[in-house]
Amino acid sequence: MSTSPADPARYNSFVGDLLGVLAYGELSAFERLSSDARYAPTLHERAVLGRIAVIEFQHYEQVSARLDDMGRDPEVAMLPFQPSVDHFHQRTRPADWFEALMKAYVIDTVSADFYRAVAGYVDTPTRELAERIQADKEVTSLLRDRLTAALADDPRLASRLALWARRLLGEVLAQARRVSFEHAFLSGLAGLDGEPFRELVRELTAQLAASHSLRMTQLGLAG
Amino acid sequence: MSTSPADPARYNSFVGDLLGVLAYGELSAFERLSSDARYAPTLHERAVLGRIAVIEFQHYEQVSARLDDMGRDPEVAMLPFQPSVDHFHQRTRPADWFEALMKAYVIDTVSADFYRAVAGYVDTPTRELAERIQADKEVTSLLRDRLTAALADDPRLASRLALWARRLLGEVLAQARRVSFEHAFLSGLAGLDGEPFRELVRELTAQLAASHSLRMTQLGLAG
Repeated sequence: MSTSPADPARYNSFVGDLLGVLAYGELSAFERLSSDARYAPTLHERAVLGRIAVIEFQHYEQVSARLDDMGRDPEVAMLPFQPSVDHFHQRTRPADWFEALMKAYVIDTVSADFYRAVAGYVDTPTRELAERIQADKEVTSLLRDRLTAALADDPRLASRLALWARRLLGEVLAQARRVSFEHAFLSGLAGLDGEPFRELVRELTAQLAASHSLRMTQLGLAG
Repeated sequence: MSTSPADPARYNSFVGDLLGVLAYGELSAFERLSSDARYAPTLHERAVLGRIAVIEFQHYEQVSARLDDMGRDPEVAMLPFQPSVDHFHQRTRPADWFEALMKAYVIDTVSADFYRAVAGYVDTPTRELAERIQADKEVTSLLRDRLTAALADDPRLASRLALWARRLLGEVLAQARRVSFEHAFLSGLAGLDGEPFRELVRELTAQLAASHSLRMTQLGLAG
């Protein structure tokens, strides 16, 4: 992808959509994680989930600042994606602390993979933003360490969390597919249409699912 | 107050209690504000309340780090205050966006006054921490501007918010009195007992109420 697209207005509109869904995803992740903190078994763990929520908020601020730089109103860019992101959260309410941790982990890691995948199609400032956010490994390791410890403490947790993680991944991918097709930003960025575009979405989906599966295996779960 | 108290162990225990209630107050303010963000009329406003919540979380982290420096476990220091802070939030659930804004404003400003008042009784590092947190005016002006705008848009809002603010202040002071008497950190820090101590609490309460009243008048509300 060159840094000077053939049709800058069209390109900006695609990138604006992409950043809009990412911004709203981060903002709502922040709110859900802060509210899931109530499941934490100790005040220390509550603060850890709070810290993770704050990092998501800082990502939101970075994406939102990039929209401002592009002359796009973040509110206008986010609004079209609100229903599907909210729908995702309604369908994936955690029932306890471990489900909340796993949800945070799946959102964090699958979004990082998604940021990495789209970074190849965008202009330099947007790519640098995507890489900066994706490279933020503090959250990932905080969550992974906690899940590993919880699974070591209670082996029976594994089958329940494996099932839950599979459901989360299904919902994430369904949402990613829905917003990609409805809003066509992926097709716009990749300059593809019709079957080649559907092929790209299939590839990306398979990639995200494979990386997720590897992470679940590393946690000792059937991915 | 000297920086080398007569009985360091006793003094540390009082300061630990004080920082414990402040830490839990900030942590729970963070969670409540993030969750109240759902009342926001626009995504932009939701992000503003999110930003305020994040600042409360950063205060929590500063207080918690000070406890660590003192060799006190933040969890242990916070736990005794959890029931009364949670009770306060249960009794003051905002019914809409404007009540959420006002609650955030009252908590923010009255706590700043409280930090300022106790700063006179503590050692240098603790006083510097209290001053740093109290001096953070970003939240205060974000909230005041929004309340001012809302009241200008809808004059009928004034009487409802005046009533709500009075109730909030009453609950804040009742809580402050309860934790001060139960945990005796104010008496410990001020080196007072019996009637002189009760007098100090009365004075502090009157001071907090007077400053609150002034701020409400400045918003155009009957304080």
